[in-house]
Amino acid sequence: MRSWWGWGTVDQAISDAECVQLAGQLPGLPDTPLPVPDPADLDLPRPRTQPPASLASLCSASDADRASHAYGKAYRDVVRALHRNLPNPPDVVAYPRNERETEALIDWAADAGVAVVPYGGGSSVVGGVEYRGERPWLSLDLSRMDQVLDVDATSRAIRVQAGTLGPALEDQLRPHRLTMRHFPQSFEFSSVGGWLATRAGGHYATLHTHIDDFVASLRVLTPSGVSESLRVPASGAGPSPDRFFLGSEGILGVITEAWLRVQDRPAHKASRSVSFPSFADGLTAMRAIVQAGLYPANCRLLDAGEAALSGASADGASVLVLGFESAHVPVAAQLDVAIDFARQHGGTPAEPSANDDSAVGSWRSAFLRMPYLRDGIARMSAIVETFETACTWDRAEELYASVRDDVGAAVQRVTGAPGMINCRVTHVYSDGPAPYFTVIAPGRRGSEMAMWDEIKQAASESLLRNRATITHHHAVGRDHAAAYERQRPDPFATALRHAKTALDPAGVMNPGVLGI
Amino acid sequence: MRSWWGWGTVDQAISDAECVQLAGQLPGLPDTPLPVPDPADLDLPRPRTQPPASLASLCSASDADRASHAYGKAYRDVVRALHRNLPNPPDVVAYPRNERETEALIDWAADAGVAVVPYGGGSSVVGGVEYRGERPWLSLDLSRMDQVLDVDATSRAIRVQAGTLGPALEDQLRPHRLTMRHFPQSFEFSSVGGWLATRAGGHYATLHTHIDDFVASLRVLTPSGVSESLRVPASGAGPSPDRFFLGSEGILGVITEAWLRVQDRPAHKASRSVSFPSFADGLTAMRAIVQAGLYPANCRLLDAGEAALSGASADGASVLVLGFESAHVPVAAQLDVAIDFARQHGGTPAEPSANDDSAVGSWRSAFLRMPYLRDGIARMSAIVETFETACTWDRAEELYASVRDDVGAAVQRVTGAPGMINCRVTHVYSDGPAPYFTVIAPGRRGSEMAMWDEIKQAASESLLRNRATITHHHAVGRDHAAAYERQRPDPFATALRHAKTALDPAGVMNPGVLGI
Repeated sequence: MRSWWGWGTVDQAISDAECVQLAGQLPGLPDTPLPVPDPADLDLPRPRTQPPASLASLCSASDADRASHAYGKAYRDVVRALHRNLPNPPDVVAYPRNERETEALIDWAADAGVAVVPYGGGSSVVGGVEYRGERPWLSLDLSRMDQVLDVDATSRAIRVQAGTLGPALEDQLRPHRLTMRHFPQSFEFSSVGGWLATRAGGHYATLHTHIDDFVASLRVLTPSGVSESLRVPASGAGPSPDRFFLGSEGILGVITEAWLRVQDRPAHKASRSVSFPSFADGLTAMRAIVQAGLYPANCRLLDAGEAALSGASADGASVLVLGFESAHVPVAAQLDVAIDFARQHGGTPAEPSANDDSAVGSWRSAFLRMPYLRDGIARMSAIVETFETACTWDRAEELYASVRDDVGAAVQRVTGAPGMINCRVTHVYSDGPAPYFTVIAPGRRGSEMAMWDEIKQAASESLLRNRATITHHHAVGRDHAAAYERQRPDPFATALRHAKTALDPAGVMNPGVLGI
Repeated sequence: MRSWWGWGTVDQAISDAECVQLAGQLPGLPDTPLPVPDPADLDLPRPRTQPPASLASLCSASDADRASHAYGKAYRDVVRALHRNLPNPPDVVAYPRNERETEALIDWAADAGVAVVPYGGGSSVVGGVEYRGERPWLSLDLSRMDQVLDVDATSRAIRVQAGTLGPALEDQLRPHRLTMRHFPQSFEFSSVGGWLATRAGGHYATLHTHIDDFVASLRVLTPSGVSESLRVPASGAGPSPDRFFLGSEGILGVITEAWLRVQDRPAHKASRSVSFPSFADGLTAMRAIVQAGLYPANCRLLDAGEAALSGASADGASVLVLGFESAHVPVAAQLDVAIDFARQHGGTPAEPSANDDSAVGSWRSAFLRMPYLRDGIARMSAIVETFETACTWDRAEELYASVRDDVGAAVQRVTGAPGMINCRVTHVYSDGPAPYFTVIAPGRRGSEMAMWDEIKQAASESLLRNRATITHHHAVGRDHAAAYERQRPDPFATALRHAKTALDPAGVMNPGVLGI
């Protein structure tokens, strides 16, 4: 059973006792966790609209459905839910089983002036699945559209419905000995359509970092008709229609299906970690590796704080985790070459582990467990959230220092304590890294959201000043809209607005995301 | 001195005697080449407009400038020029030196209702740089904007002006020991801006096949203002502005500058050719190589006809040319792995050559020489043209057979002779190949263009029926517009049209390309 307010499933949530134990690491927090409200006790506002009888069987207005579709899973979403702060839940939640029903729902909404917010796995951390406007609104939950419809094993490509969650996708590919290998941290509770609509970042640290790179064709249901691109491996025919819908976050329509490139399951793996005296040294080594045209599947640099927190190193070192994999050819030699580069830049490789797979396995479990811990600490009124970015190499060191200074100052000002600001680099490119920051600080019960919003504001200003993107793979949603508008070229905003008006004349598709 | 009617420079053009000799290989051609007209004798229509005095010094209305900017360099362009068929040359040719002057020219054109056709190197083979409408028109030649403005060696990135031709770009990068390594066949006479506006295909057969993959940021001058994207290595913030302008072929504005990713110059190279009893076997081997995650820089499969024509093989075999390169790590082992895959799929590797570099060098010279030969045969009234596409692996064999059948039938019908229809695969992806076809057949003097247009129509229909893209890297221009419109999703066409109207309300930017 899915948690209505927090991450994942109810049975995986951490206990009250564990919450208290976790909070022991931060000063000045309350003694007890916030209780988890029951949706029936939330006193939700009454629905302002209801679907026509022909669509009623696809729809729900139950407290549980409305509460669980009111927000995504950002820190600010979780604390709002815990504080019973749900003034604007969806008026209707719909669960279409196919494109025809999805179309009927959108047609009704467009006619009735009801806003439509597509909902895949509900894992948005940027306010992508809530609605902040005045209209009645429909949360369009695609979870019943969860099938792999075609497998072209020759071309290593599949046709899949948008509502398919990560595990269901892998389950359906396994009999074909294929894999998508797209493993965002939200893997278990995010959907193919959500990945596409938000340009999700995945498993690969290099080369194929975003889901974008695996898209062969999209089928998008817009209020003005279906857009289906020709499925070809590549084309130079005009601007790419797929790239226009990728990242459009529902403002132009709902992605219903996609042809995606998949791979044979990896048979060869090799990984090793390397420690560096400083984060800057680690960055330089990463840069050398990626600029040499080596393409590790894993290439993740943890700063000292992150390394300590994750147990990778407790001695103040930064740690680079390198991993290569292949379905067809041995990769040990590639790893050796990368290790050599790391050594040339001041790195000290760890002893090769006898059991790499189990180390990777336990890291992966911890990685997937992290959001549950976040919820536990949030229940203790700590502030715990992440943000991520990307910048060019020439700015990387300064960005790292600058963000830590700026966010550190904000944390001190807002919470009265220094907090923890850790960083890891999750993806890496020939022209720059993608750093991912985690902030943990003591909050004041009842003020958590306001406190985080102030810290986040400082983080965003720091990114903007350093000419780093407001998001590398978390998307824009509503939370990043203002900063995104400052980074987006004005003529492109104009183009996007006019395209939206043409495809969605009633303006009902996810109004408010992307600042549109 | 550039040829006004044909490819490249006048001094590289082949002689009348060589034309006659070349034509000896085809039956029934005339005895003498078409004479090359002098622009002054063309009797061009008088210019219908002239720029204001403030812009006059940037502009020319000379016969030579107008004639040389009337067409691109497709076969149908060359034969029209040779037949003095230039009813609609530009009224004005402008050579702005900077963005400010470019803006002033566009402002004037928008006010005066003059169509603006951006012109980089003039190498379009799809009618991208001519104009077929009723308005007076300006050919906007960007060749004076030819500087590398910034080199960020740390991030391996450069800022470059759009009018920079391939050789000038490499010349400016060489002192920094960097290279763009974007080598379309048009390399010598195509520009950075043209590559970007048309999504040009380049040197790399895998992984980074299009210029798109090297773009970090674009600066585009639209009639409604400048669009400049944030230069970051990657972003998940909304649909990519760069991907929207890439391939827009001037309908939204003029690309004036770009930040591009460059590389260290390769120091390690290894290449070898492998012959296959059939084209289908070669395709299967290519597929195995690319699906194994090997990324050869060169991976080019020639069918028997193409292999014979290029001297790679005369025994009816298909030939796969494999090459790896790196600036930093030896590549011989990678080549060996790829050769093993080829062998497993029926390939017979050639003996390793003692002097790979010279073989590659002579192939490259022949490759760059080819358009001059095309012009020579065209002067003898032969039909000689190419077209290219991409499709998924599951359709590749059938596409190859089907296109050869369909185009073969058209050649027979139109020319009365079977002609030659050869194919090579120029780029390759995990989900499919990009085949490139060459057609050579005897023409009838005076009817060359009509004959080719009929053959091309059959080729396009064949691609459409086989669900292959109308162009992998030659772009749409005006010649592919009708077929492109049949492949482009309608809602995307609507979005593009509305975006264009918003950015170019006077509708002056390259009207007619992309069917818009």
